[in-house]
Amino acid sequence: MDQGIFTTYESEVRSYCRTFPTVFTKAKGSLLTDQDGRTYIDFFNGAGALNYGHNPEYIKRALIDYLESDNIIHALDMYTVAKGEFIEAFENRILKPRGYSYKIQFPGPTGTNAVEAALKLARKVTKRTGVFALMGCFHGMTLGSLALTSDLGSRAGAGVPLGNVTHMPAPYMFGDEFALNYVRTVLEDDHSGIDKPAAIVIETVQAEGGVYAFSNEYLRGIEKIARDNGILLIVDDIQVGASRTGTFFSFDRAGITPDMVVLSKSIGGYGMPFALTLFKPDLDIWTPGEHNGTFRGNQLSMVAAKCGIDLTIDQQVEAGTVRRGQIVSDFLTREVAPLDDSIQVRGLGLIWGIDVAEEELAQKISRACFDKGVILERAGRKNAVVKLMPSLVIPDEVLVEGLGVIRDAVAEVFAARG
Amino acid sequence: MDQGIFTTYESEVRSYCRTFPTVFTKAKGSLLTDQDGRTYIDFFNGAGALNYGHNPEYIKRALIDYLESDNIIHALDMYTVAKGEFIEAFENRILKPRGYSYKIQFPGPTGTNAVEAALKLARKVTKRTGVFALMGCFHGMTLGSLALTSDLGSRAGAGVPLGNVTHMPAPYMFGDEFALNYVRTVLEDDHSGIDKPAAIVIETVQAEGGVYAFSNEYLRGIEKIARDNGILLIVDDIQVGASRTGTFFSFDRAGITPDMVVLSKSIGGYGMPFALTLFKPDLDIWTPGEHNGTFRGNQLSMVAAKCGIDLTIDQQVEAGTVRRGQIVSDFLTREVAPLDDSIQVRGLGLIWGIDVAEEELAQKISRACFDKGVILERAGRKNAVVKLMPSLVIPDEVLVEGLGVIRDAVAEVFAARG
Amino acid sequence: MDQGIFTTYESEVRSYCRTFPTVFTKAKGSLLTDQDGRTYIDFFNGAGALNYGHNPEYIKRALIDYLESDNIIHALDMYTVAKGEFIEAFENRILKPRGYSYKIQFPGPTGTNAVEAALKLARKVTKRTGVFALMGCFHGMTLGSLALTSDLGSRAGAGVPLGNVTHMPAPYMFGDEFALNYVRTVLEDDHSGIDKPAAIVIETVQAEGGVYAFSNEYLRGIEKIARDNGILLIVDDIQVGASRTGTFFSFDRAGITPDMVVLSKSIGGYGMPFALTLFKPDLDIWTPGEHNGTFRGNQLSMVAAKCGIDLTIDQQVEAGTVRRGQIVSDFLTREVAPLDDSIQVRGLGLIWGIDVAEEELAQKISRACFDKGVILERAGRKNAVVKLMPSLVIPDEVLVEGLGVIRDAVAEVFAARG
Amino acid sequence: MDQGIFTTYESEVRSYCRTFPTVFTKAKGSLLTDQDGRTYIDFFNGAGALNYGHNPEYIKRALIDYLESDNIIHALDMYTVAKGEFIEAFENRILKPRGYSYKIQFPGPTGTNAVEAALKLARKVTKRTGVFALMGCFHGMTLGSLALTSDLGSRAGAGVPLGNVTHMPAPYMFGDEFALNYVRTVLEDDHSGIDKPAAIVIETVQAEGGVYAFSNEYLRGIEKIARDNGILLIVDDIQVGASRTGTFFSFDRAGITPDMVVLSKSIGGYGMPFALTLFKPDLDIWTPGEHNGTFRGNQLSMVAAKCGIDLTIDQQVEAGTVRRGQIVSDFLTREVAPLDDSIQVRGLGLIWGIDVAEEELAQKISRACFDKGVILERAGRKNAVVKLMPSLVIPDEVLVEGLGVIRDAVAEVFAARG
Repeated sequence: MDQGIFTTYESEVRSYCRTFPTVFTKAKGSLLTDQDGRTYIDFFNGAGALNYGHNPEYIKRALIDYLESDNIIHALDMYTVAKGEFIEAFENRILKPRGYSYKIQFPGPTGTNAVEAALKLARKVTKRTGVFALMGCFHGMTLGSLALTSDLGSRAGAGVPLGNVTHMPAPYMFGDEFALNYVRTVLEDDHSGIDKPAAIVIETVQAEGGVYAFSNEYLRGIEKIARDNGILLIVDDIQVGASRTGTFFSFDRAGITPDMVVLSKSIGGYGMPFALTLFKPDLDIWTPGEHNGTFRGNQLSMVAAKCGIDLTIDQQVEAGTVRRGQIVSDFLTREVAPLDDSIQVRGLGLIWGIDVAEEELAQKISRACFDKGVILERAGRKNAVVKLMPSLVIPDEVLVEGLGVIRDAVAEVFAARG
Repeated sequence: MDQGIFTTYESEVRSYCRTFPTVFTKAKGSLLTDQDGRTYIDFFNGAGALNYGHNPEYIKRALIDYLESDNIIHALDMYTVAKGEFIEAFENRILKPRGYSYKIQFPGPTGTNAVEAALKLARKVTKRTGVFALMGCFHGMTLGSLALTSDLGSRAGAGVPLGNVTHMPAPYMFGDEFALNYVRTVLEDDHSGIDKPAAIVIETVQAEGGVYAFSNEYLRGIEKIARDNGILLIVDDIQVGASRTGTFFSFDRAGITPDMVVLSKSIGGYGMPFALTLFKPDLDIWTPGEHNGTFRGNQLSMVAAKCGIDLTIDQQVEAGTVRRGQIVSDFLTREVAPLDDSIQVRGLGLIWGIDVAEEELAQKISRACFDKGVILERAGRKNAVVKLMPSLVIPDEVLVEGLGVIRDAVAEVFAARG
Repeated sequence: MDQGIFTTYESEVRSYCRTFPTVFTKAKGSLLTDQDGRTYIDFFNGAGALNYGHNPEYIKRALIDYLESDNIIHALDMYTVAKGEFIEAFENRILKPRGYSYKIQFPGPTGTNAVEAALKLARKVTKRTGVFALMGCFHGMTLGSLALTSDLGSRAGAGVPLGNVTHMPAPYMFGDEFALNYVRTVLEDDHSGIDKPAAIVIETVQAEGGVYAFSNEYLRGIEKIARDNGILLIVDDIQVGASRTGTFFSFDRAGITPDMVVLSKSIGGYGMPFALTLFKPDLDIWTPGEHNGTFRGNQLSMVAAKCGIDLTIDQQVEAGTVRRGQIVSDFLTREVAPLDDSIQVRGLGLIWGIDVAEEELAQKISRACFDKGVILERAGRKNAVVKLMPSLVIPDEVLVEGLGVIRDAVAEVFAARG
Repeated sequence: MDQGIFTTYESEVRSYCRTFPTVFTKAKGSLLTDQDGRTYIDFFNGAGALNYGHNPEYIKRALIDYLESDNIIHALDMYTVAKGEFIEAFENRILKPRGYSYKIQFPGPTGTNAVEAALKLARKVTKRTGVFALMGCFHGMTLGSLALTSDLGSRAGAGVPLGNVTHMPAPYMFGDEFALNYVRTVLEDDHSGIDKPAAIVIETVQAEGGVYAFSNEYLRGIEKIARDNGILLIVDDIQVGASRTGTFFSFDRAGITPDMVVLSKSIGGYGMPFALTLFKPDLDIWTPGEHNGTFRGNQLSMVAAKCGIDLTIDQQVEAGTVRRGQIVSDFLTREVAPLDDSIQVRGLGLIWGIDVAEEELAQKISRACFDKGVILERAGRKNAVVKLMPSLVIPDEVLVEGLGVIRDAVAEVFAARG
């Protein structure tokens, strides 16, 4: 396959292919193979959608069996056995053991669709139009979600002023205490100019913002502010849910119960397009079809998602994530952070960032990694954070090999800078 | 599978399951089977996403083979063999033979995402914020697309005022000539209060609006107005593209060349989540990643979509659609329209509407069809249009059987009314 | 006074001085005098704010007496004798004899402020955000009013997209019947894309739009549509109220009772900044101070406005306007319209337009009038309508002299065109 | 005059009359008289519009002379002698001696109109839509200005979501340094979610916010941030300009030069409706008439404003304000602040606030002052700040008498609380 087919016909909007300029063919576990037979260790993880690795056998068999049997594939929101089995697994194996009671909406198969559905419902329930989002956040690219999303590059694409959203400082900007105090202040000050919002939307770890994990104190504080003011708390767990941080929901660790939760990416199990909007039962004031979408009932995604839940529980993915996360944490602290005073390493579970402060350095490190056989992406302010997001079930030896490559790349780039 | 699992845990937003209250299991060609073993003829077609029927063998084999070989499934916008093969097929078998030159954007796997991408690009290219849409249109449910979408029920869900869109009368409301004249007038009148838009977005057949096919004269007229005024013409071919009207693009018949085309639903071949935004090469001023989305590179969708193109050409789906469309047209004209003076039948290719003017009647007909073993949905003003949208490759005998059921249902309901 | 003081220090936004490039000093009745001692007949009338002519003695004496006695001048919305006397006169001499029951709001001393207040209250009462305005309308230049105002030049100044307003075709564009039918259609069609508005805002004569008087049938029709749909009808009588059309309120002739009425310009009697927002008592759900403004209680304006009402009634201004209007109508019909086939004359009472279809022609006529000693402005599409708006108490001989000058100017310009 | 005329016919929106429930007749200097012959010391000052006191003889004579001579009163933006004389005085006596070079726009006779004009021009110049305002600010009640205005009561009246404005913390909320740092941070952070604005709009003393004077350091800091980022700095000097703080422009003390300045209230000299929008000459890219308004050329206002400038310079109003301000400052510090630990006094020049923290207390103090013959208003958070804003030329003995009344009222109310 000549790359010319892409450069000629595919829009200039394409991006990852510019970072990884090769044609991929096979993928298994934590390894990717290109058409030249070269193999790459995957620390990119499909932008967070492949927590169980590429093509896990358990899910693959289920998908093939489902296809072979001519089971219904495309069903919108009709009732199907596959959807019923997913719901059962999700309620019985995920929600109930954690003490959560949520209704499930299948809002369409993308994260941004799930966010849009949550925003609609929050506005409908509260009869307010405004929403608070945090600086550093990313919530999607359709117009409603985009108004939340904080990076200038994404926002510039809107082509219209983005409204009905107010951005609050993230806790790492001026400290946890200030971040909470600021929100409380603008809500209580009758001259803040900021109208009471329908909802506060947060990620517990800002991934695109540069891998910042929020403290449990902050999370509990923001929940309390929301409760005290009759504002809905929405957690966008699209990237760091599905066990990425070491617990299925990233907020489990804080003991909070959001009013709504948005899931996508790895909830699809196999990289299948899938998304969920969860909310407390008393918020379920939707009228039938008030939000819809053609692909909200892809049954292959239901099958894969149900299998993903099985894997999570049966293979104790959460515990494995905690254990592997410690390996990464130790490695970065001991072997990467010391390479230069300007380097900061941050993370939780199996999402980590190496912040090198300058865009050009991060770009060179990313390229050096690719050249050495490791795939990863950049994130954060100035795109200066090298983001590590391996599969949650990556074999230890592959994990360690990949980490070594990254360390070497960082060392090399900083050495070259002199 | 007890339906209680859905009524307890799935949000009240679910809708088709209320019209078709059973649990589906298998699907093949134009037949659906529920868990009680009952079989239904499918005139619903997954809301237009299953033009090749359920689980066509040619695509099914390709999907299973792709899965079995551990080919890469989830690839965002990296280069892959599957994507390259889709692009080649689409350019060489669809675009070039028709004389179109379009760049391809994979904007995310849903129609609304493709519309949002088109709106962003149109606004970026023209530096204008407004867009014209037509009364009766449906373009999606995320905030940018929703501002276009015309039905009050969908709009009410927004929770914020929907802006930057002006609705123009559809040609069937006051006639083709008036519809064109009105648009030209508001553009030329320096006191119309309506600012020049970035784009005019149309469907050539308004499906959700109640199955209204626009004349070639109207389509050519609106293209001319757009050209004369430096406004981009965007055709949303999500529901009636992919040969539904008898030509691959629904606008082929009019000899127009939109500046942008939006495709989804049946372009995915097998009901797989997939969408495309096409635009003339000189409009491709996107910066890398300016619009993105996690599931914009599902390779199963690429594989299925490529196979769908093969089917289209190799099995002469367009011609088959024209032939079957004539069967439907003849049948409705001769056997359904005469059942009551209030009935209107409208359509093109294999999308047809039986407009019975009253919501309650349409609801009863739809329910009677379900009871008699035919699945179809309603659309249009007051939801009073019974919509027929069978697979484009439905066997003649199944088509005729389904039509007979529909005629009987209509007759029965009108007879009961007295 | 050297004009350089203005061209050096006053913003380029200045406009009328470009049409009338001289420095004015005195003004009395229908005559203006510049610093060179040249006298002009005034058919411009301060853009409609001087219905009783310049510096009428009756009001002048009252103003000077008020000033001499050190009565309170600036009072916001405190209670004062002058305000009380205005209210009494307005209620007893204007509203009650006509059978209207309105509460009075003093929203600030400009028309646009009065419109903004009306919009706020209409939205508050109905809990809806949208408003209908008519193509061709002008309602002011602050952001809320500007969203209504229809001419592209004014709208371009906004610098932000103007929302929450939908423009309906004016009756002269496609006929009365169509204009009404169109509004009714978009309100009743559940797929029009146009949400039910809080209010319909109209002028009964579009002055800035090019001097189009709406028929009584249209006015009654739009009132009925508003009533049938629970929408408030707001009449903006800023330019054509205060007897301009031959009745104090311009809508008196049609027998309608708007829910709200907005007045400014000549209500101030002496060209004093003044405006009123009137509404039916049951709509008065304002909380104290919810809309305010520093200059909402200028007592000189109250005094002048009260005197203006005295003049209206005591000097039978309405009847005089009708009589003089007939003179203008006859003259234009007999002596101006026949000058060229392209000329249209339109008007009512003492507001008339000579539509010459081309901007350049109108500009030349306006300039020729100025050179010959008559001041008037242009309006309408392409600014091609020469607008005649003399004082309502202009002496007949001055009126006729001015008309003669205008006829000569039109004749001259058309003759020069050949 | 019976108050029933107002309670029956004037809208419930009326407000000051509720605080001062009597009918006023005469006004001179710092004294108001009601129809019962009772006299009040005026510390309210027409909400800041009467810096030279009520009906100053110098201006009164000029107004009467102007009226007596039948000079032109209403002139829109035509050239007149009165306007020329105002411009000359303003340029030569105010701007040039201070080293400022501004073009003058007459945007209409209200402060909010002047703000709307400034916003339009800032957006036009920068081609950006957003604007920064400060928490605690007040900039007017028409839709564009209202989006800036920060108090919830005013904002709630909008009836539509207010957009295109972001509120920054005021310096007194978290300190000067933080306030500046916060603005710089959100501008420099590429993930702040806050797009670069067209302008930063500030008051140097937030009057309605509760009488908070900003430090010179803050003012210089915000000017520097604006300059560094290509953002226009707009100072709204409507309430605290015209010498209120001891210098003609309130920002003179800080040595900054805003890109635009907005003036109204006391610039009208005699309480006449008047407003100015000033901007650096290179920003004057208005097209003729792009912003307009009927009452932008009231010549009585021009005359009074010119005389106000004469008074300012000839009677050394600035120095007098500084001297009298010291009297107030000393008095409040020594005699009012010590009355209770909860009391804060704040101010500059002749604008002062007594912050008693609780709405009910402030209301009682205001009422007690009225009963004892002093008129003043409340402002700020919870309306808990008693605002002192006497005329700038108030005789010392009246000033001291009024202060004594206020002290007694405060003492009495706190004593009653126990």
